[in-house]
Amino acid sequence: MKSATEYLTFRTERREEFVCITEEVAKVVRSSGIQEGFALVSAMHITSAVYVNDLEDGLIEDIKDWLRDIAPDKDYRHHRTGEDNGSAHLKNLILHHQVILPITAGRLDLGPWQQVFYAEFDGLRPKRVVVKAIGE
Amino acid sequence: MKSATEYLTFRTERREEFVCITEEVAKVVRSSGIQEGFALVSAMHITSAVYVNDLEDGLIEDIKDWLRDIAPDKDYRHHRTGEDNGSAHLKNLILHHQVILPITAGRLDLGPWQQVFYAEFDGLRPKRVVVKAIGE
Amino acid sequence: MKSATEYLTFRTERREEFVCITEEVAKVVRSSGIQEGFALVSAMHITSAVYVNDLEDGLIEDIKDWLRDIAPDKDYRHHRTGEDNGSAHLKNLILHHQVILPITAGRLDLGPWQQVFYAEFDGLRPKRVVVKAIGE
Repeated sequence: MKSATEYLTFRTERREEFVCITEEVAKVVRSSGIQEGFALVSAMHITSAVYVNDLEDGLIEDIKDWLRDIAPDKDYRHHRTGEDNGSAHLKNLILHHQVILPITAGRLDLGPWQQVFYAEFDGLRPKRVVVKAIGE
Repeated sequence: MKSATEYLTFRTERREEFVCITEEVAKVVRSSGIQEGFALVSAMHITSAVYVNDLEDGLIEDIKDWLRDIAPDKDYRHHRTGEDNGSAHLKNLILHHQVILPITAGRLDLGPWQQVFYAEFDGLRPKRVVVKAIGE
Repeated sequence: MKSATEYLTFRTERREEFVCITEEVAKVVRSSGIQEGFALVSAMHITSAVYVNDLEDGLIEDIKDWLRDIAPDKDYRHHRTGEDNGSAHLKNLILHHQVILPITAGRLDLGPWQQVFYAEFDGLRPKRVVVKAIGE
């Protein structure tokens, strides 16, 4: 069995920002030499998410609006700790913080429109995503 | 390490339709010969989902209604591209597009009521799911 | 390739209860001897979830309230079967029933605030979570 582990660091310029990271993940997979296996892409923070969907600017704004509707900014109990990012935690839970990408014949085995996104909800500071591939 | 990769193709007769695929996945696992490992079941499209829950017709209709409530059909920015499937993208995100099933002693290691579903939100055309098992 | 499989059983004292299980999962990983790999933590029931987020009591209550808002107790079709746990099924779907944790250098490779939770929505009876690690 082979494995490869890399940490990607993002420091977004806005508090909420989505970044397409398909190519960064593909690079980790290529340099691993793994032909058949899985690549886990997982946010290491609890106020950001990783998801797979379309690289279409309108849809990305639709997703942000929709998340604001179902996880609005408001006065959460969590804010009694001094934090103000309660909604960011809930958005992390809706989108899920991770995906597993199949690796087949040495490449990410994605459908034609599938792109991998890092979704930041509490940025402006360095935050990490772990990419870990196992296989052979 | 062993691996097996198969692609299931679905062409649902309705735009929205849920299909129980536990047996198709179990067949891939059995023919792989893997005794201990993981099976990834992942939609290759961004308007369909894969989830694990109950094979109970009433609940399946409840899930469809609930998804329509929290991701309604409406005029999304995404529709400026000519598409009309914005809500299908959001439903993909809520249910998540994939599950990992444990393989133990050569079989899917599921709880007594757990069934695997393909949830189509923009069907009437061929769409694929990748089933990839790794282990030994 | 090495693998290890353990089943954790929870019998919560309230119907809805969240339990931090990071240490139980870490114990399975340590005793597996796996240095590099993945640990799957997956609810075997369809009315409970497994998620990764913050161990902060206020936030945990925020999550419970938020889930009640978007998956309220009401008269679901599923209840015609005699069940009364429709909302628990929907909460399982929102939070997702499983996570994959990377194992690096023999340890769970989690971010500084990431804790693993078992989220019970229909408890008061024994329910199981499978922890399965593979790697080498």
